[in-house]
Amino acid sequence: MKDIDKLLSKVDEESDDSINILFDLLKIKSISTQTDFRDECKKAAEWLRDYLIQIGLHTILYETEGHPVVYGEYKSSKKDTKTILFYGHYDVQPVDPIDLWDSEPFVPSIGMIEGKKCIFARGASDDKGQLLTFLQAIKYFKSAYNELPFNLKIILEGEEECGSISLPKFIAEYKEDLNSDIAYVCDTSMWNANTPAITRSLRGLLSEEFEIIGPNRDLHSGEFGGVAWNPIHIISNIISDIFADDGSIRIPKFYDGVRDVPPEILKDWSNLDFDNQSYLSKIGQKSSSGEDNRSIFEKTWTRPTFEINGIHGGYTDEGTKTVIPSKASAKITCRLVGTQDPEEIIKNIHNYIINKLPEGVSVNFKGSDYCRAIEFNTESIYFKSASDAIKNEWGKPPVFTGGGGSIPIVEVFKSELNIDTVLIGFALDNDRIHSPNEKYNVDSYIKGIRTWLRLINNYN
Amino acid sequence: MKDIDKLLSKVDEESDDSINILFDLLKIKSISTQTDFRDECKKAAEWLRDYLIQIGLHTILYETEGHPVVYGEYKSSKKDTKTILFYGHYDVQPVDPIDLWDSEPFVPSIGMIEGKKCIFARGASDDKGQLLTFLQAIKYFKSAYNELPFNLKIILEGEEECGSISLPKFIAEYKEDLNSDIAYVCDTSMWNANTPAITRSLRGLLSEEFEIIGPNRDLHSGEFGGVAWNPIHIISNIISDIFADDGSIRIPKFYDGVRDVPPEILKDWSNLDFDNQSYLSKIGQKSSSGEDNRSIFEKTWTRPTFEINGIHGGYTDEGTKTVIPSKASAKITCRLVGTQDPEEIIKNIHNYIINKLPEGVSVNFKGSDYCRAIEFNTESIYFKSASDAIKNEWGKPPVFTGGGGSIPIVEVFKSELNIDTVLIGFALDNDRIHSPNEKYNVDSYIKGIRTWLRLINNYN
Repeated sequence: MKDIDKLLSKVDEESDDSINILFDLLKIKSISTQTDFRDECKKAAEWLRDYLIQIGLHTILYETEGHPVVYGEYKSSKKDTKTILFYGHYDVQPVDPIDLWDSEPFVPSIGMIEGKKCIFARGASDDKGQLLTFLQAIKYFKSAYNELPFNLKIILEGEEECGSISLPKFIAEYKEDLNSDIAYVCDTSMWNANTPAITRSLRGLLSEEFEIIGPNRDLHSGEFGGVAWNPIHIISNIISDIFADDGSIRIPKFYDGVRDVPPEILKDWSNLDFDNQSYLSKIGQKSSSGEDNRSIFEKTWTRPTFEINGIHGGYTDEGTKTVIPSKASAKITCRLVGTQDPEEIIKNIHNYIINKLPEGVSVNFKGSDYCRAIEFNTESIYFKSASDAIKNEWGKPPVFTGGGGSIPIVEVFKSELNIDTVLIGFALDNDRIHSPNEKYNVDSYIKGIRTWLRLINNYN
Repeated sequence: MKDIDKLLSKVDEESDDSINILFDLLKIKSISTQTDFRDECKKAAEWLRDYLIQIGLHTILYETEGHPVVYGEYKSSKKDTKTILFYGHYDVQPVDPIDLWDSEPFVPSIGMIEGKKCIFARGASDDKGQLLTFLQAIKYFKSAYNELPFNLKIILEGEEECGSISLPKFIAEYKEDLNSDIAYVCDTSMWNANTPAITRSLRGLLSEEFEIIGPNRDLHSGEFGGVAWNPIHIISNIISDIFADDGSIRIPKFYDGVRDVPPEILKDWSNLDFDNQSYLSKIGQKSSSGEDNRSIFEKTWTRPTFEINGIHGGYTDEGTKTVIPSKASAKITCRLVGTQDPEEIIKNIHNYIINKLPEGVSVNFKGSDYCRAIEFNTESIYFKSASDAIKNEWGKPPVFTGGGGSIPIVEVFKSELNIDTVLIGFALDNDRIHSPNEKYNVDSYIKGIRTWLRLINNYN
């Protein structure tokens, strides 16, 4: 391990240079969802390619049906070194509503918020600022020591904001070349401005849509009311019966593979500065749904859910129509955790619904999809080393949080490359990503670079 | 009572004349829902006015904001005669889809179906043919005896197919003038081609719409799934909980005022030629919903219902959206029977829903409406006399059926004029009213005229 204190100081001293580099990238209007900005996306890809070349990486720009993937590679001259994979995205969200911006979204500027220097621009936080924390760290380390203590593979995509359509194909195609020990992604948030976080798990997702068919046509409720099976009633019964009184889900074997959170993690979470009532009041609630005797952290990070995202049946326009509809349908999704088996769950949901149907009433399943939950091995050297680097830079160890949602690319890394991902991010909850006046704190940026430098150095 | 056998024979002998008169009315394109046919509606009203004048009635054509009401009146010279009110409608349904007609909808023709002579035209059955059975009977009786054995008030409206908007106003305005002992309507069906029917009750209707509000905005299910109250789940619970396992409705006091059908009526119904399974299979069902241990007749004619006519919440377009919606809404209607009190029931439904809401979840009621159930006094002389007339003409007494739906005008006669309505009709289930190739059997028409003649003569 090298003594990198001087290098860390250099990062501080040259912070304006780092900011200027970020400004250059932020000036490129790489909005991936709007075809008018196709050339700008390419420009951002080329800027990054040139940047990686300048560091000394072997670099390729892969054209896709959408926007290019920038790929950079460094091969260590030493044997038995680890191989790390870094992922980031250079595309940004549209800027609408433009009227609500206090400055031009693609003319980056510095301002103050709550006494902190911030960089304002679309993409400042998501993900241009964040990805450059890693790239700048690599650049500093490489230029100081002329080598890196690992093999490095960098993937920078331009379609994250529009569904990462091309990336899974790219990864499947170059699976062998992408073989690595661990992946790093810098696209998440800190717990708060003083407390960094590492994501220890991500919930999976399962989706299904079903349609209940009662009578063979819409019926008049005067003529058939009392005899006809109303599919809205049946679909309501099905949904209602899925939940037990204690808030648990009654699909058979649903909880197979759901693990309780280790006590030490639960203890960490209970020490976090978090107020249940103010959290709930932000979404207009006075109480919490879900399972009894589980904390909000457990409910949103480590427990599976069954959610009805949409329901429709019968007459829904203005006024009254005395119809008994022939059909009613619902879209559902389940958040998955641990080693829950999506295919088994889909099968059990199907059977559960079928068993609830009165004689002669039928169901159509419209097609399911899923992405498994991921739980990282936070006991591995990669997570320990990241935790150490963070602790040394920020003065306190990171909180190991759960991720309530899914990050599909991380699932692809797991399923295609069989590697865990260390999700470290320096964004803050008030960075307004996807919204007007997006910003990235200068502290997030500079201390982010320094954190990565410490992490890189841990490989020595 | 006169010996009217000769008069009945005359009706048979002159059946072609009666048919020609109906043809004249059927040629008028009195479609009330389409503004292009406004003049045709007026033409039909004028035709009927002239027809009533020809019989010798004092006749008025009332203009309304929609189509005219034709009013005819006959005052008996004798004292203490009863006053009867007859209602019919001269407007007809649109003819779409025109391609499916085998003949021109407004060029009436005679054809055969199942060995029976039929009159084909839009309105042949609904309601021009039916209303003329009564008017022709009046004409025959009046021309034979130069008087009628009652005071007569005739209302013929032109907006039945578009909601009878003007009629309640007309009736309220001329309430005193319309004072009568009983109303007759000829707009219903026979039980089958050989068995006439009289409607003994009509279910009422209550409507309400409500919206459940959970979180204060649509939420992402990754972030808030497990904690957020999903209004679709709550609305499903509410709907599901309303029904007990035996199919009864659990709104408190819902069954107050619901009476069991007299055993002799139940016995009549059990003797009817009716097959449960073929009835159910026509609507694509293998089993029947609703209360245990009740016949289909009871369920559709004499029992109240709780029906969800529409439900909507969340994302219902193509594909998946991992949203927890802020709102979900449902439209409901109840069919009412006996002396059920709609206002009490609406109040109890509101309380039932409110009591089911988790803390902090709220409900908006969008506004209710209702029309009470009606049960006629079939022991009255009017029903006995109608039953006799039918028995004498058709060789068997009528079935006293229930009406599953509501006929608002009959409710208005009850509430505004405080009179029962004898609903007799000679239509058949295969008359294809509202559909292409509408027809009216010549037997329905001629025997219909003869039935009314017998009924009129019962007043002597």
